[in-house]
Amino acid sequence: MNNIPVTSRTKVRRAPKRGNYDRDTIYQILDEGLICHIGFIANNQPFVIPTAYGRVDDRLYLHGSPASRMIKTLQDGVEMCVTVTLLDGLVLARSAFHHSMNYRSVVAFGTATVVEDEGEKLAALKAFSEHILRDRWEEVRSPNPKELAGTLVLSFPLTEASAKMRSGPPIDDENDYDLPVWAGELPLSLQVSPPIADPRLSENIAISPSILNSLG
Amino acid sequence: MNNIPVTSRTKVRRAPKRGNYDRDTIYQILDEGLICHIGFIANNQPFVIPTAYGRVDDRLYLHGSPASRMIKTLQDGVEMCVTVTLLDGLVLARSAFHHSMNYRSVVAFGTATVVEDEGEKLAALKAFSEHILRDRWEEVRSPNPKELAGTLVLSFPLTEASAKMRSGPPIDDENDYDLPVWAGELPLSLQVSPPIADPRLSENIAISPSILNSLG
Repeated sequence: MNNIPVTSRTKVRRAPKRGNYDRDTIYQILDEGLICHIGFIANNQPFVIPTAYGRVDDRLYLHGSPASRMIKTLQDGVEMCVTVTLLDGLVLARSAFHHSMNYRSVVAFGTATVVEDEGEKLAALKAFSEHILRDRWEEVRSPNPKELAGTLVLSFPLTEASAKMRSGPPIDDENDYDLPVWAGELPLSLQVSPPIADPRLSENIAISPSILNSLG
Repeated sequence: MNNIPVTSRTKVRRAPKRGNYDRDTIYQILDEGLICHIGFIANNQPFVIPTAYGRVDDRLYLHGSPASRMIKTLQDGVEMCVTVTLLDGLVLARSAFHHSMNYRSVVAFGTATVVEDEGEKLAALKAFSEHILRDRWEEVRSPNPKELAGTLVLSFPLTEASAKMRSGPPIDDENDYDLPVWAGELPLSLQVSPPIADPRLSENIAISPSILNSLG
């Protein structure tokens, strides 16, 4: 185990047995997710905005237009919370009360800094691309100077984070196990459907290897 | 159209064409999602916590143990943000820069109140159950007085909310349409796998109609 030190913010209080502070476990959840939910405060109001992200080692990268409210707020180094949730299934118990969900989530706290270095910025943009679809980066046109200048990239260090997970069957009250009710788990997962070509795609362009690989 | 009045908090600023304030559209996204991300402030720190929810008319219901940090904070009527995001696909452009995602999201602002009325509380718990799996409520043991007393239900009015959506093919730079790169959409959706019986399930209990219906 390679635990991230627990803080009062990351300590899992409810159902502490579901808490996990192992860095590999946390990174696996971050790498499997595609969308994170960013929490920040603006005008004393909490905002939660979904966005894409990438990871390189112990950093998450976020990006956006320098004009976005979220980016403008976060680049000032305010406290933020980044949450990634994977829904793995519905937990169907014999009682309404013990219904639940199986999930894996990560909650991370900290502050972001603007990536100024051109090399790190390009590496972050490659990480976004690879996170969405591995090997796609090599197939497409690379960012040009105008695009690079028009994108603000934020670096968020993964120094304060925890995972919380539930898996397995329902836990019913002992008295309820005799009820004639089907109980168990209904697994859920994000699945890919066949790709839909851009109506403007030129003829005779085959689906590229990165996409074929994602179809399994 | 039956629009929810736009406020400075719900106005979609980035890519305003993707904004939508139609109540039916917003409710459809909320009803299709299974997890919301709740944003709140505690000790000047933003928190983003994933949780289940239910909807009845113009209210979202949240629930939890009265001992949870989130529930304890929200029941005081602090400002909160509720976000639901559905990921519909990867948008694969000819340039790295124009890669995107297709999604439908709702962001709602407001404050919650504790549901004290027993009848409304039971209706909210039924809404959670029906939201997870329609008709499951009638198949299982109903909450008993002890379970009702041990669950705190919060009511969140949907008076300030907006949706943001992207769909369709990539939008590439005009010069890039001639590149020999496959471009289009890779659709993603949450799919159900065959149910897994609880190892403690008694013999001869058939999978119930609510579950069979969800398998389509």
